[in-house]
Amino acid sequence: MAQKPSIAKGTRDFSPIEVAKRSYIMNTIKEQFKLFGFHPIETPSFENSETLMGKYGEEGDRLIFKILNSGDYLNKVDDELYASKESTKITSKISEKALRYDLTVPFARYVVQHQNEINFPFKRYQIQPVWRADRPQKGRFREFYQCDADVVGSKSLWQEVDFVQLYDKVFSKLGLNGVAIKMNNRKILSGIAEVIGASNKLIDFTVALDKLDKIGEEGVKKEMLSKGIEQAAIDKVQPLFNFTGTTAEKLAKLRELLATSEIGLKGVDELEFIVNAIKEIPLETAKLDLDVTLARGLNYYTGAIFEVSAPEGVKMGSIGGGGRYDDLTGIFGLKDVSGVGISFGLDRIYLVIEELGLFPDTVAPGTKALFINFGTEEGLYSLKAVAQLRKEGIVTELYPDSAKMNKQMKYANKRDIQFVILAGASELENNNYTVKNMNTGTQETMNFEELKLLLR
Amino acid sequence: MAQKPSIAKGTRDFSPIEVAKRSYIMNTIKEQFKLFGFHPIETPSFENSETLMGKYGEEGDRLIFKILNSGDYLNKVDDELYASKESTKITSKISEKALRYDLTVPFARYVVQHQNEINFPFKRYQIQPVWRADRPQKGRFREFYQCDADVVGSKSLWQEVDFVQLYDKVFSKLGLNGVAIKMNNRKILSGIAEVIGASNKLIDFTVALDKLDKIGEEGVKKEMLSKGIEQAAIDKVQPLFNFTGTTAEKLAKLRELLATSEIGLKGVDELEFIVNAIKEIPLETAKLDLDVTLARGLNYYTGAIFEVSAPEGVKMGSIGGGGRYDDLTGIFGLKDVSGVGISFGLDRIYLVIEELGLFPDTVAPGTKALFINFGTEEGLYSLKAVAQLRKEGIVTELYPDSAKMNKQMKYANKRDIQFVILAGASELENNNYTVKNMNTGTQETMNFEELKLLLR
Repeated sequence: MAQKPSIAKGTRDFSPIEVAKRSYIMNTIKEQFKLFGFHPIETPSFENSETLMGKYGEEGDRLIFKILNSGDYLNKVDDELYASKESTKITSKISEKALRYDLTVPFARYVVQHQNEINFPFKRYQIQPVWRADRPQKGRFREFYQCDADVVGSKSLWQEVDFVQLYDKVFSKLGLNGVAIKMNNRKILSGIAEVIGASNKLIDFTVALDKLDKIGEEGVKKEMLSKGIEQAAIDKVQPLFNFTGTTAEKLAKLRELLATSEIGLKGVDELEFIVNAIKEIPLETAKLDLDVTLARGLNYYTGAIFEVSAPEGVKMGSIGGGGRYDDLTGIFGLKDVSGVGISFGLDRIYLVIEELGLFPDTVAPGTKALFINFGTEEGLYSLKAVAQLRKEGIVTELYPDSAKMNKQMKYANKRDIQFVILAGASELENNNYTVKNMNTGTQETMNFEELKLLLR
Repeated sequence: MAQKPSIAKGTRDFSPIEVAKRSYIMNTIKEQFKLFGFHPIETPSFENSETLMGKYGEEGDRLIFKILNSGDYLNKVDDELYASKESTKITSKISEKALRYDLTVPFARYVVQHQNEINFPFKRYQIQPVWRADRPQKGRFREFYQCDADVVGSKSLWQEVDFVQLYDKVFSKLGLNGVAIKMNNRKILSGIAEVIGASNKLIDFTVALDKLDKIGEEGVKKEMLSKGIEQAAIDKVQPLFNFTGTTAEKLAKLRELLATSEIGLKGVDELEFIVNAIKEIPLETAKLDLDVTLARGLNYYTGAIFEVSAPEGVKMGSIGGGGRYDDLTGIFGLKDVSGVGISFGLDRIYLVIEELGLFPDTVAPGTKALFINFGTEEGLYSLKAVAQLRKEGIVTELYPDSAKMNKQMKYANKRDIQFVILAGASELENNNYTVKNMNTGTQETMNFEELKLLLR
């Protein structure tokens, strides 16, 4: 009995139209990456386990897909360990390779391994799939693409300015006007922690503050108190509960608030540099917002933090994010390589563009004309025209079988092919073609030059 | 101690220039696929093991990369089986997923699973990596791309004609003029087996015959006899030892030779149909050759067989191949779906193009102009110009740090950037730019419009 085929849990097939739409997004991003001077690299799908393990925390280690060794792999497990039957301990003996979990660690490995061939600052982009053994759920997959651009080897804030521009250009090109690029700085968060005298409560603090819109000032304060943040600390950062006004006003408030924190003021300076530059080189359609509650990847980022949210009215988590990290390659022994990067959330961007109906009609240019197959001689006559038309860049095909007319027409219809071309005995004799426009139903006979002009 | 990073055995990093060259090949192929009416699909990197296992023979099963189950995977192995410590038997209990081994079986799974959404005949292309646990060696990798186009759901020989055209167009576009598209037909091989009365010796027969050029007629016959093929059988196919002349002459010889074999004559008819069509629609640069020793995938193909070899003078195995198979989807329960397809050997095509120096100079368009960074105010002035130039599609960058002039110039040099643009205090005052051509060493001051024209 033949088995009924199924796809692995948490993975997806992509049909032609889905591939076309995904390619449209990826190509739009790539085009801007290139304009901004980024270069593509690719790394292997699997890495030696020691390259990946221990880099993403305990949960990350668990979610990394491990590849079983080949051959008699159990032979290498000593009997005592084998007898324990402890999966976690035996894994490293029977698996030496693992699937890429993100693009950042392989990039760090790449930079260290190829450091002598690279001209720093190195601007690279990378668009490849990653795999995570997460429990699949709506919008969360076990295989998905990441789409990253990073610069390593320079601490310059001009990079941050360029990345804000890059986000703006990509989303504008995609027609996603009005995305919000939210920006914060890790140093500001450190400053706030210093001021409230509770660095270990920083996450609780930002999580609570983030709910200001929903639960109001009193609600937030209540939550902060319940998390053990003291009233006196809350009083010190009172301006954050009224964090409105222009960006300049917000920066002024922060500068006052963080007056006693050296690192906090450094963060304000950095934000100000970026904000001032963007003021001079205005964004096309995106808005740049300061958001002091933004605290993504707290243990990872050291400077600017970015997160992009979809245009207002679309319910969707962040569609992009990134920031500055001061030691990407230290894990592999190359110290003091500062980096900054952003990523695009391909799957979510897809959903937003779909929801807003922004995929161009031309995203999957299909076959323009189908030649009906009337038999060997006619087929040959048609295929000569097909070859000439393809040279002109016109997508055209001969129906493969001399099936019933009705079947061939149906096929053209189902595939949304606009023109059907009939070349039977009479056309062969007169060296012309009868063209049926499937949209209008009209039919016309013409010579090859006219046909070419029509289809072009 | 930080670990020294290394890449997994048999895998490769691709640097920017390598990615650009590979993309050039893939895009050229894709463009023709689309012109010929093929549509892209993508399938997941891993499949449920039962989808892949048993489909590639015993060696294939061994070479499939298996993915370890998550969690306490050993818990699911019953104690008796566990005690055996037999890797081969335990594998299926601790691994339920496996990495794609080729694109054909996942495609068959796709067709069966999506049969109700597909309009047959279905013309799909697929360009994705596959993984094999082969022993790595020169030119053989554990991760490599396959690049396939197939039509399923039609037995028409027009497809074969179209595929010969497709090969010709792709290799012509790549500048690989003069590739040989070798063609045979499985039915001809069956016919030969019938005539020599030794179907089980067919492989020995073709392998020996293939050495005609190297070891001569006597050598080949000696090898055949040593493999147990009888003298009487060899005599019957004597014309194959003198298989020269025009294609028409070759076909006539085959027709005579296979006169007693119904299936053999069917094969001759099929070849003739393709040859006649190609005569009427001449190939651009490729040549179509009949090669009765061609016997790839003997157990798989049922009709036409193709193999492409590099232009004369280049030592390289086949750079493409394919053929007709009559039952792709039967393994998954969908009967009578005939298919025909070809594939392109991406890695080898890359090596051939490299060897012949045929990659266009424009394959990796780099940064056209680098603005020297003189500080904050000058940086801002430059970045405004950068933003305008990028809008015009000109790849340009501001050096991120206001480092020493020498360092910035060196960077431009190393990255082969043709123009370096200096905008210091004097340029800001006069609202212009000083442009240094790094190739000629000349230097000129101009306004923005002139700069735009120069860089365009």
